[in-house]
Amino acid sequence: MPHIHLPADIPGIGAAFAFRPETAKPMRELAHILLFEPGSEASLSSRDRELIASFVSSRNTCYFCQTSHGAAAANHVGGSPELVAAVCSDPSTAEISEKLKALLVIAAHVQGDAKSVTPGMVEAAREHGASDVEIHDTVLIAAAFCMYNRYVDGLATWQPRNEEMYQTMGARLAESGYAQPRS
Amino acid sequence: MPHIHLPADIPGIGAAFAFRPETAKPMRELAHILLFEPGSEASLSSRDRELIASFVSSRNTCYFCQTSHGAAAANHVGGSPELVAAVCSDPSTAEISEKLKALLVIAAHVQGDAKSVTPGMVEAAREHGASDVEIHDTVLIAAAFCMYNRYVDGLATWQPRNEEMYQTMGARLAESGYAQPRS
Repeated sequence: MPHIHLPADIPGIGAAFAFRPETAKPMRELAHILLFEPGSEASLSSRDRELIASFVSSRNTCYFCQTSHGAAAANHVGGSPELVAAVCSDPSTAEISEKLKALLVIAAHVQGDAKSVTPGMVEAAREHGASDVEIHDTVLIAAAFCMYNRYVDGLATWQPRNEEMYQTMGARLAESGYAQPRS
Repeated sequence: MPHIHLPADIPGIGAAFAFRPETAKPMRELAHILLFEPGSEASLSSRDRELIASFVSSRNTCYFCQTSHGAAAANHVGGSPELVAAVCSDPSTAEISEKLKALLVIAAHVQGDAKSVTPGMVEAAREHGASDVEIHDTVLIAAAFCMYNRYVDGLATWQPRNEEMYQTMGARLAESGYAQPRS
């Protein structure tokens, strides 16, 4: 049961967003830019950015975020539930680019102690073609999910074990992004 | 040295904001609402909200955020550098309300594993007069600083040890908030 009085029929972060629309607006906008909007230069695909989001959420053991962003990643071009599971289990053996593998190493360190990101990790990502914007966005996606995950779990939101619900949510997120509340 | 090419003369999060203005906008707005704007009901003072921000940043050992938000707290009515130091050292013995002490217990748990917040901790805050909005905002401030702190440290931003600079910054933040970039 949630720690405060949230709308009972809305799962996960949506209930917290409905409770406090003022803070929901910038939080939605940030997710929309980081995960959905095309980047300003040769930037990561939405599939790859959703994989980073799901991977970080899995390390924070946030069921709602891991599952919903995993479903979003699976619904983007080149995504699948198997790929999401492989990335969350061990990025180094998943069928993803070497660039994304190097970025996920950075993301894992941001999720733990962000000061543990080393110049060597950043250099490895650059060697595989990562731009400054892609490194920046990886750090910020990882940091932002340390917020979203804690918001969802710190309020003890309702996180139903309902695979079909997350499938529907993932398809919608992959199609329309995060800017608008669900109508 | 920062991991990516950030403006060299801007300290801390400001350099990352200048690098990526698209994401800076919602991140500034969120901080402005959470820390500066008056709440919609009997809500925490800006001093108390800045104390939560500085306390969480101290637990994430983020020098820039701890010092700048500590200076902001000290510049609000009823704030002082001594109070900020006492809260970051041990909230239970600091000269703050019992309500804020109970909320800082929640904030500390959100900073660690957010799932470790218990109904008992929330009940204790309520017994000292905390409203649902205040509990919500405490959780979200703590969660958001787990993002801001990781963003600042994960990019290895420049964090000068310059007390006067943080004093000036704290006075400006306490006066004007976070909505606009510094001109």
